[in-house]
Amino acid sequence: MKKVGIIMGSDSDLPIIKKATDTLKSLEIPFEVHIYSAHRTPLQAAKFSQNAKENGFGVLIAAAGMAAHLAGAIAANTTLPVIGIPCKSSYLDGIDALLSTVQMPSGIPVATVAINGGVNAALLSAQILAVSDEKIAEKLKQKRLADAEKVLEKDKNVLENL
Amino acid sequence: MKKVGIIMGSDSDLPIIKKATDTLKSLEIPFEVHIYSAHRTPLQAAKFSQNAKENGFGVLIAAAGMAAHLAGAIAANTTLPVIGIPCKSSYLDGIDALLSTVQMPSGIPVATVAINGGVNAALLSAQILAVSDEKIAEKLKQKRLADAEKVLEKDKNVLENL
Amino acid sequence: MKKVGIIMGSDSDLPIIKKATDTLKSLEIPFEVHIYSAHRTPLQAAKFSQNAKENGFGVLIAAAGMAAHLAGAIAANTTLPVIGIPCKSSYLDGIDALLSTVQMPSGIPVATVAINGGVNAALLSAQILAVSDEKIAEKLKQKRLADAEKVLEKDKNVLENL
Amino acid sequence: MKKVGIIMGSDSDLPIIKKATDTLKSLEIPFEVHIYSAHRTPLQAAKFSQNAKENGFGVLIAAAGMAAHLAGAIAANTTLPVIGIPCKSSYLDGIDALLSTVQMPSGIPVATVAINGGVNAALLSAQILAVSDEKIAEKLKQKRLADAEKVLEKDKNVLENL
Amino acid sequence: MKKVGIIMGSDSDLPIIKKATDTLKSLEIPFEVHIYSAHRTPLQAAKFSQNAKENGFGVLIAAAGMAAHLAGAIAANTTLPVIGIPCKSSYLDGIDALLSTVQMPSGIPVATVAINGGVNAALLSAQILAVSDEKIAEKLKQKRLADAEKVLEKDKNVLENL
Amino acid sequence: MKKVGIIMGSDSDLPIIKKATDTLKSLEIPFEVHIYSAHRTPLQAAKFSQNAKENGFGVLIAAAGMAAHLAGAIAANTTLPVIGIPCKSSYLDGIDALLSTVQMPSGIPVATVAINGGVNAALLSAQILAVSDEKIAEKLKQKRLADAEKVLEKDKNVLENL
Amino acid sequence: MKKVGIIMGSDSDLPIIKKATDTLKSLEIPFEVHIYSAHRTPLQAAKFSQNAKENGFGVLIAAAGMAAHLAGAIAANTTLPVIGIPCKSSYLDGIDALLSTVQMPSGIPVATVAINGGVNAALLSAQILAVSDEKIAEKLKQKRLADAEKVLEKDKNVLENL
Amino acid sequence: MKKVGIIMGSDSDLPIIKKATDTLKSLEIPFEVHIYSAHRTPLQAAKFSQNAKENGFGVLIAAAGMAAHLAGAIAANTTLPVIGIPCKSSYLDGIDALLSTVQMPSGIPVATVAINGGVNAALLSAQILAVSDEKIAEKLKQKRLADAEKVLEKDKNVLENL
Repeated sequence: MKKVGIIMGSDSDLPIIKKATDTLKSLEIPFEVHIYSAHRTPLQAAKFSQNAKENGFGVLIAAAGMAAHLAGAIAANTTLPVIGIPCKSSYLDGIDALLSTVQMPSGIPVATVAINGGVNAALLSAQILAVSDEKIAEKLKQKRLADAEKVLEKDKNVLENL
Repeated sequence: MKKVGIIMGSDSDLPIIKKATDTLKSLEIPFEVHIYSAHRTPLQAAKFSQNAKENGFGVLIAAAGMAAHLAGAIAANTTLPVIGIPCKSSYLDGIDALLSTVQMPSGIPVATVAINGGVNAALLSAQILAVSDEKIAEKLKQKRLADAEKVLEKDKNVLENL
Repeated sequence: MKKVGIIMGSDSDLPIIKKATDTLKSLEIPFEVHIYSAHRTPLQAAKFSQNAKENGFGVLIAAAGMAAHLAGAIAANTTLPVIGIPCKSSYLDGIDALLSTVQMPSGIPVATVAINGGVNAALLSAQILAVSDEKIAEKLKQKRLADAEKVLEKDKNVLENL
Repeated sequence: MKKVGIIMGSDSDLPIIKKATDTLKSLEIPFEVHIYSAHRTPLQAAKFSQNAKENGFGVLIAAAGMAAHLAGAIAANTTLPVIGIPCKSSYLDGIDALLSTVQMPSGIPVATVAINGGVNAALLSAQILAVSDEKIAEKLKQKRLADAEKVLEKDKNVLENL
Repeated sequence: MKKVGIIMGSDSDLPIIKKATDTLKSLEIPFEVHIYSAHRTPLQAAKFSQNAKENGFGVLIAAAGMAAHLAGAIAANTTLPVIGIPCKSSYLDGIDALLSTVQMPSGIPVATVAINGGVNAALLSAQILAVSDEKIAEKLKQKRLADAEKVLEKDKNVLENL
Repeated sequence: MKKVGIIMGSDSDLPIIKKATDTLKSLEIPFEVHIYSAHRTPLQAAKFSQNAKENGFGVLIAAAGMAAHLAGAIAANTTLPVIGIPCKSSYLDGIDALLSTVQMPSGIPVATVAINGGVNAALLSAQILAVSDEKIAEKLKQKRLADAEKVLEKDKNVLENL
Repeated sequence: MKKVGIIMGSDSDLPIIKKATDTLKSLEIPFEVHIYSAHRTPLQAAKFSQNAKENGFGVLIAAAGMAAHLAGAIAANTTLPVIGIPCKSSYLDGIDALLSTVQMPSGIPVATVAINGGVNAALLSAQILAVSDEKIAEKLKQKRLADAEKVLEKDKNVLENL
Repeated sequence: MKKVGIIMGSDSDLPIIKKATDTLKSLEIPFEVHIYSAHRTPLQAAKFSQNAKENGFGVLIAAAGMAAHLAGAIAANTTLPVIGIPCKSSYLDGIDALLSTVQMPSGIPVATVAINGGVNAALLSAQILAVSDEKIAEKLKQKRLADAEKVLEKDKNVLENL
């Protein structure tokens, strides 16, 4: 099975990445995690991205805050789908990272998820692999049903809280 | 080959979709286009999404403006990867559509591209299909090289314009 | 008397809904509360909305955060007036939910109140029912007078705090 | 039948109000239109609002731009439901009017629609009257079906434009 | 000497008003403080404003949050200069109050100070009275010199903190 | 009578200043106009401000765009009331100028009016002078009545336009 | 004399760069211009930057729009000072480019100028070179005096336009 | 060696300046620190700036919050490169200071770094001095390598945290 490659720009993004890796584990999807900064280690980030396909990766996830260039820098060096997680940093509530991640120029897309959206980045990577992998597709379907069930369970008990 | 399904919320989004379909044509990827509004035709939008997988779609693209719910509504009814294009409408320069598309809750991701990003939505759908389709992967690689070549060509002549 | 239907997208919105139900109780207006997510349980949300009128509801209130599609999804399936409460979530201070709720396309209005505006959503639902119910109208008038009285009471004592 | 009262803050908002009155005409709902500024003619605006109920109005619509106080000023003087239309003026793309209209304090709701949302304000007023008027309810239902039909008609022909 | 009239929309604004009244006390300028809500007690707010001039006020200060109509409502009923303090409330960091206060339409100005700017509102009211009152003018000049002195004092000791 | 001093940061702000001077002329208030840039001619701007009081000015108006420091720079050098007009420049719709003008630190207020608010800046300066000048006060009152009359005149004819 | 290196992300930024090169020409500072995209030609951009110092450059200017990574990507590969020009593109008025350029993480600064600030980027590069080059310093001083003179000239004639 | 001059608008900015001076110390670059407010001590700020060059400064850093005029006021009085640090204050998360610092008019650039970017302001000042000082250039290069090493070290151990 193709792996999901996860790169974060700084270890301050670990709590967000943890949600992504937990989600991938629950779906039994193999992954690899790296800390490469688009600005402090541009060569390593580029190299990882250039070799990602031949190293068995099917999708890449990049998480960064502020002027979040990481997802774009990764996307510039591969044609694998790249998912960007804009991370909230100390100021501006993540809007800087969101715009820096999503507003990519024509030719180099980044599949952007919500601010700090670690779970959804993992689910999106699973959905992408599932296009050609029925087992993952089935697991995603089951997870959806379970998620819906949880909502409906809460719906039953809502009056107790009001 | 799996098809790309494209849904726009209103025919005012046609110029953006045109860029997406032109890109898909150039990559020889089959697609189908629909106009379904998340609000005016919610049942048709939901139905299309629910049946998309068995109808041979591999990825879906949804384009909408303002309180852009379309991509989310599509994503809520399928586990196929869904790409959202936030469309600029008359006011607010597309920021309403961007936030309405990208800020999806945990569990239901939408792969959001830039405001009015028709070309990138198509390229991202191609990248997703290319995970299991070497022919598309090769075409994307060639397109990247050609795009780079165009930039370098312009670089050679830049002084003439200054 | 027609009921007010209240739907929240997630149980994290309960504190806001509590303010709404407390307000409705004080006005002796019957209500029903549900947790249905526009994205995790789209069918249940749609079904509730489609049947709301014949099930005795006169107004619906929908509360959701982030890419807050719930009010719009409810409004798409009924012609009852739908009141949207944009809920602040962890990032962006509720501006994402506000724009996702209020910027509805022509044809499907959502009566949007302030961010986290649980009390006002309930009052607005009461005002709507009061159009054809003089008892509620009278209670709303009394509440206004009482609210004004409270302000004027505070005005009397303001100097003590300065 | 109860009338819809429409107040605009300035005659520069006429094109938006025209969309509202056209919509109300198509639904055969009686209305009255006034130009009263919350700031230039505060007494007239307050008086109109105070007497609106006894003068046969069931819902009020207020449209204003910039620091759009009109809907709030109207709402402060009546317990009829008040719908606010934030109008785009020369700067800031209507975000000033949106926040000035929707962010009402607890106690005095304004049912806010989208920026320049004349049609939706009218439809919302109709939905409110329809709570106790089956004829309007039926007309709204028919309009919904017709709107959906228009979308599906366009869907059929979408390929011609691509 | 003419008095400064201070009106706040809610007693939650008291800490901001306290800074204003402390400043006025230090300048020995007489003032009067009221709590009048533009929405909950519109008549009292209007009445206070209409009579302010003949009641001996020279300047008015109005402080409010959210859709902050108070300063505008006060300004609509007097030709005395009205200073608006936009107050930060629970969401949106005061930008709603700022735009609702400053973006007044042509004809009815509000002299807006910074978000939560209680001290500056008081100083501005003093500056306005000082146009025709040399004693206040002299006190303001002395305060400026003292403020500058404090900065320069801190400048001398800055190295100790680095 | 004390004069109004008007300073603009650049002659691109002339159309806005024109509205201010027309308003002052209509009120027969003497004024003087200068172009001094806070950044290109800081000394002249500071000098003008330092001497404004003894040169017979009662109020100053400063208009600037972008990082609009002019009003603050003027205010830093006088204790006369300073009115700031944030001017829209080519980008960002004037929000940069608004924040640069209004968010003054404690100690140095700037009485900020709406973006491009030339008329209101002039009216505010007149209101300030009117605190000690009954003639101006009377003219302002008459202007208010005339403005209200214009609105009510339009109200009479509104139906013709719908 | 050290050269200024100018890189733009796309030839759509040429009008902005033209202002920069015109300014450098007027100061007789040598420069070189390139079109390298951070995303379409990442290797060439990195290479140019890595070799910039030994190729005789003293300062680099990078101009890009949208998710403007170019200045950051250049800065990541050199310790020469890098000036970033955020360019307005079709949507969002340049705020995306501004945040993507200025919000750089600790360790890799980008000296950001105003949106579309071609002239100021050139002047800043000149100021940097002038730290060790008295001739440029003198020219900058003269330009300042000339700029001030122009403002004062306009000040003399301002009344003609009012 | 030329010194770096650091000016902060208020001692509340000390923690940010501390990061800058620590960075300069680690690079053995001499500096001088002052507290001068653009508004409370405009003359001292202007004087410091006017004399900075002849007093041995090569670069200036100015840090201020809210309507952050300090960097611009410093830049207006010298042709030395001026670096602006926009400081977050109590409201608006620093966006007011960012726009007030970066949106300088043509002719007077301010090299703006990220909100609260004390470290980067110091590094940028070092990069500017390094243009003509190989020792600093070498230290900056070493710091870059060390920073990269730290990232790669964390990359090695990342799995332990997931």
